[in-house]
Amino acid sequence: MNPVEMIRKKRSGGALTEAEIEFLIAGYVRGDVPDYQMSAFLMAVYFQGMSDRESACFTETMLHSGSIVDLSSIPGVKVDKHSTGGVGDKVSLILAPMVAACGVPVPMISGRGLGHTGGTLDKLEAIPGFRTDLSMKEYVEVIRETGLVLIGQTPEIAPADRKMYALRDVTSTVESIPLIAGSIMSKKLAEGIDALVLDVKTGNGAFMQTEKESLALARALVGIGAAGGKPTAGLVTSMDQPLGQAIGNWWEVVESVECLRGKQVPDLMDVTLALGGLMLKLGGKASTMEAGIELCRSAIWSGRAYEKFLQIVSRQGGDTRAIENLPAYPPSLNRIEVTATDSGYVHAFKTREIGVLATELGAGRSRVDEAIDPKAGIIVGKKIGEKVEAGDVLAVIMTDRPEAAVRAADAYRSFVGIGREPVAVPPVIRWYVDIHGVKPYSRNDVYPAG
Amino acid sequence: MNPVEMIRKKRSGGALTEAEIEFLIAGYVRGDVPDYQMSAFLMAVYFQGMSDRESACFTETMLHSGSIVDLSSIPGVKVDKHSTGGVGDKVSLILAPMVAACGVPVPMISGRGLGHTGGTLDKLEAIPGFRTDLSMKEYVEVIRETGLVLIGQTPEIAPADRKMYALRDVTSTVESIPLIAGSIMSKKLAEGIDALVLDVKTGNGAFMQTEKESLALARALVGIGAAGGKPTAGLVTSMDQPLGQAIGNWWEVVESVECLRGKQVPDLMDVTLALGGLMLKLGGKASTMEAGIELCRSAIWSGRAYEKFLQIVSRQGGDTRAIENLPAYPPSLNRIEVTATDSGYVHAFKTREIGVLATELGAGRSRVDEAIDPKAGIIVGKKIGEKVEAGDVLAVIMTDRPEAAVRAADAYRSFVGIGREPVAVPPVIRWYVDIHGVKPYSRNDVYPAG
Repeated sequence: MNPVEMIRKKRSGGALTEAEIEFLIAGYVRGDVPDYQMSAFLMAVYFQGMSDRESACFTETMLHSGSIVDLSSIPGVKVDKHSTGGVGDKVSLILAPMVAACGVPVPMISGRGLGHTGGTLDKLEAIPGFRTDLSMKEYVEVIRETGLVLIGQTPEIAPADRKMYALRDVTSTVESIPLIAGSIMSKKLAEGIDALVLDVKTGNGAFMQTEKESLALARALVGIGAAGGKPTAGLVTSMDQPLGQAIGNWWEVVESVECLRGKQVPDLMDVTLALGGLMLKLGGKASTMEAGIELCRSAIWSGRAYEKFLQIVSRQGGDTRAIENLPAYPPSLNRIEVTATDSGYVHAFKTREIGVLATELGAGRSRVDEAIDPKAGIIVGKKIGEKVEAGDVLAVIMTDRPEAAVRAADAYRSFVGIGREPVAVPPVIRWYVDIHGVKPYSRNDVYPAG
Repeated sequence: MNPVEMIRKKRSGGALTEAEIEFLIAGYVRGDVPDYQMSAFLMAVYFQGMSDRESACFTETMLHSGSIVDLSSIPGVKVDKHSTGGVGDKVSLILAPMVAACGVPVPMISGRGLGHTGGTLDKLEAIPGFRTDLSMKEYVEVIRETGLVLIGQTPEIAPADRKMYALRDVTSTVESIPLIAGSIMSKKLAEGIDALVLDVKTGNGAFMQTEKESLALARALVGIGAAGGKPTAGLVTSMDQPLGQAIGNWWEVVESVECLRGKQVPDLMDVTLALGGLMLKLGGKASTMEAGIELCRSAIWSGRAYEKFLQIVSRQGGDTRAIENLPAYPPSLNRIEVTATDSGYVHAFKTREIGVLATELGAGRSRVDEAIDPKAGIIVGKKIGEKVEAGDVLAVIMTDRPEAAVRAADAYRSFVGIGREPVAVPPVIRWYVDIHGVKPYSRNDVYPAG
């Protein structure tokens, strides 16, 4: 067993055996395989990829580098959702209580935002008092009591991935489908889940900008889930414009609460209900995804989803008065209305740039150790397909940073493409992916998920 | 300037600017750019290559990481030869005194053998007393007095290359033409040369096994030489069988001395004379390579080349009595005649395997810190094209290692392919390469070298 030979084998397009992958990853975690060999190996993987068997074994080895939560004492089929991340993606905040309210336990370990995307943890922490740093013992207690739990990564979970991700970040080896898939799945499989639903974003605000890449990642994730014995299915959804209207941590909580109380935000709720339907299908509470969607709808209109949200906020230390009285939240120093200078129809967004702008307003981080301003953000007024008259409000921007405030309106305006001709509202859900393959998404299908 | 972005740029097929390459290499030597970023960069170069400009700048930066010997006080055009290494390649031992005897100063910094190939330093050190560890001051003194100097690498020369090569060795990033070319040329350009001649080996005993790869390396080396202002030309020569008859350090000295005294060993002397002719052409002592070859011949038959060899041996501390009385050298414990079991014609050699066998007999190293037995080796009896009767001696093997002695004859026999039909003796010199391009080698051409 020689790391140099393994790097050479991968470099030359060969496939490593399970024993070789275990040797390499376990040796790396122990410190026997140095960073410089691992980074050369990762770059070779970037160019040569991994076979399905290698991917599955790579993920398993990272998974077993740490603890795997045992939720077998919790009744029911535990199902989580993972999103590859985007701008305005607050789906988890609505989805988790909605699905839990339908009787499927949701153990959810989330990340923080970095770069142009937000993170579920930062959004939850915008709620005064909300604790995401539960111990593993509390994690099991909370899901047992409430049917869901929302926490951040703990040091026990997949330490190999944490060490490897830090290395990938500084060696330009992040953008590799088998490495991304292994990183995601090693953490998800450690949560104690029985099944997993994926929201793989595609478009100019996503990490994977083309449908081809997004589908390849979705297939890789589904394959690893299946190899790990956890039924996995997913949707490829559009990130060619922000999802919903709110961008920024507190504002995304506000929009989520409004949706839980029944507000119709078409693209956001289309994605949330479809993922919810799939989770209920995989969780054994609905015979089809369609039937699952209907159960989710009833959890919303009955108020049970909102009640579940209040319950988890309270259980994890959050102040439910902030939720029940949204306007009482402290305002930003600057509130800027961005008005249109042209008339026409919204054709396109530079979505990634809007995410970066939100970060500059204080809503995100460009370094992991930066602080976040939860009330900084953007409310998107006009979305793709909407008619605009000169002078209409395109968006409202909130920030405490005076310099960002000066530039923000012109910047935002430059990120919205307005054309003369009307355009159709593009479908937000594009593809359905499971172990049987890929098909175009259509609400009228009955999906044979699982 | 961010190494992560430079790795990304190279990974995506872009070309780095000169400032970026300098930042990366100088930062690496200082320790500001860590090993793990450099190894990821090197693997990206393995897959994406380098442009001619990048190669030249990469080499220049490594060259300037250390001292460059100033030989401007030595009259004449200083010319060195570099070989990419092979089995039985003792060309330098004949070539350097032969060319120096014709009035072209030869400053030669050589390496040690590693793996299946020998190294000029190890061969020179087989001569009792011969010192290759001269200081830079002695280096200049010796070439001033004798017209040539033969030493090993010093810590002052291209420390960036030394640090980088050690990293490449343990990260499977050795086999990349721009990296190999940069490594060779950064050391050669530091020697104080005015021009350089290359012997790029090709075939199953060479590092580059195909003519395509060998020509690509030759072109890369010639391009870097030209970019550094040093006229460079080279030959691509066969390593599909050992060069000459002797393999092993003392035995290669013996064969070299015999050739310096006028012995005809066709393939070895064809290569040596052609390279010598080219060095005299580049050194301004002959108007054509052909004329240079004739001058080299006369240096041999007149005895001046042999006298020059004795002079440099003596000047660098070697015992000339060992040279003048070759049979007095202590013999090996085991001397094994390998006899043929079949009759026919020698069709082919497994040249690399023969080099590895010589290493196992004690003639080389598999690790850099291993000791060498100078008298261990192989004398090749029958070469490609020669007729063989069962019982004929194919080779004679010398070793002090009893275990190696037991296996050696059967091993050697299995590395020689004998067929029924006669085959022609293949030409040893295949291609001529200079800045104007590549052409097939033909003795009757007059090469527009330089």
